[in-house]
Amino acid sequence: MKIILLFVGKTKEKFILNGIDYYLGKLKYYVKTETRIIKPEPIKESSNSALIISQESEKIFKTVKNDGPLILLDREGKQFSSEEFSKLVHKYQKEGNRNIFFAIGGPLGVSEQLKKQAHLVISLSRLTFTHEMARLILLEQLYRAFTILRGEKYHK
Amino acid sequence: MKIILLFVGKTKEKFILNGIDYYLGKLKYYVKTETRIIKPEPIKESSNSALIISQESEKIFKTVKNDGPLILLDREGKQFSSEEFSKLVHKYQKEGNRNIFFAIGGPLGVSEQLKKQAHLVISLSRLTFTHEMARLILLEQLYRAFTILRGEKYHK
Repeated sequence: MKIILLFVGKTKEKFILNGIDYYLGKLKYYVKTETRIIKPEPIKESSNSALIISQESEKIFKTVKNDGPLILLDREGKQFSSEEFSKLVHKYQKEGNRNIFFAIGGPLGVSEQLKKQAHLVISLSRLTFTHEMARLILLEQLYRAFTILRGEKYHK
Repeated sequence: MKIILLFVGKTKEKFILNGIDYYLGKLKYYVKTETRIIKPEPIKESSNSALIISQESEKIFKTVKNDGPLILLDREGKQFSSEEFSKLVHKYQKEGNRNIFFAIGGPLGVSEQLKKQAHLVISLSRLTFTHEMARLILLEQLYRAFTILRGEKYHK
C-alpha cells in the first residue's frame, strides 16, 4: 500500500516544511508515501470563493480517479482518536488497496460535492487550522498510527 | 493581561521551536506573553510514572500560585472551536486578570489533582499529540484568537 498525500499548493512556511520532511523521513520505515501538489487557483480580491473551491476540489477528484479510496480532511468531518485512526489505516491496508489518498484542500477548503465523493471525511479537531498546519498534524498522526500498529513506544 | 505559557521541559524538536518562535513573534503585536519552562523529572526505565506526573503537576501548580487563572491542556478536556476559544480569551481579558496561565504537561501528562485545581481543562483534539506539538498548536490558536477578536483576515 502506498499513501498518497494530496495538498493544494506548495507548503510555504519553512518550519512546517521541515516538520513534514521530518515525519516523511520517519514514515518511510513503515509505508511508501508520495506527496502530490495540486496547483492552487489564484486568490484575488475579486475572486469568486465558491468557484475556487469547486475548481480545486475537482482537481483533487481527478487526481484520485479510481486509484484508491479518498480520505478527505475537513473540520466538519468525523473525529477519531489516534488509536481509532491507526485502526482505520490498518483496515485500508488489509483491504489490499494499492493506494490510499489523504487530501487537504487549499486555504478556502473543499466543496460539498468532494465531501460526498470522498470515501471518508475526517476532522483533526473542532479547531480551525491553517491548511499547512493540517498537513503537519496529519503527517504526525500517520507516523503515530504506524507506531501504534507495530506496538512501538512513542511518547506523548 | 499577560499570557504565561507553562511548558514542562525545553522544546527539543527544531521545527517546533521555530514554529513557536514564529507565532510568539506574531502574538507580540496583540498581547504580552512569557514562556516559563518547568524542569522535567527524569524518565528512566525504573521510573514511577505516577510519581513523575504528580511531581511535575505540583511544579506547575506552584508556579501559578494565585497569580491568575490556570487553563490546562489535556486530551480529555473540553473541546472548543477557534471562535469559542477566542471568546474565552476575551472573557479572561475583560475580567481584568493580570495574568492567565496556559499549561501543557510533559510526555506523561498531568495529574487528576491538577485537572481539578485548574480553572479550565481544554482539549485541542480527540487525537493524541506529542506535548511539543501541543505547544505549537496552542500558539497558533492563540494567534488566531487575537486575529478573530480584531476582526482580521487570517486564511485557513
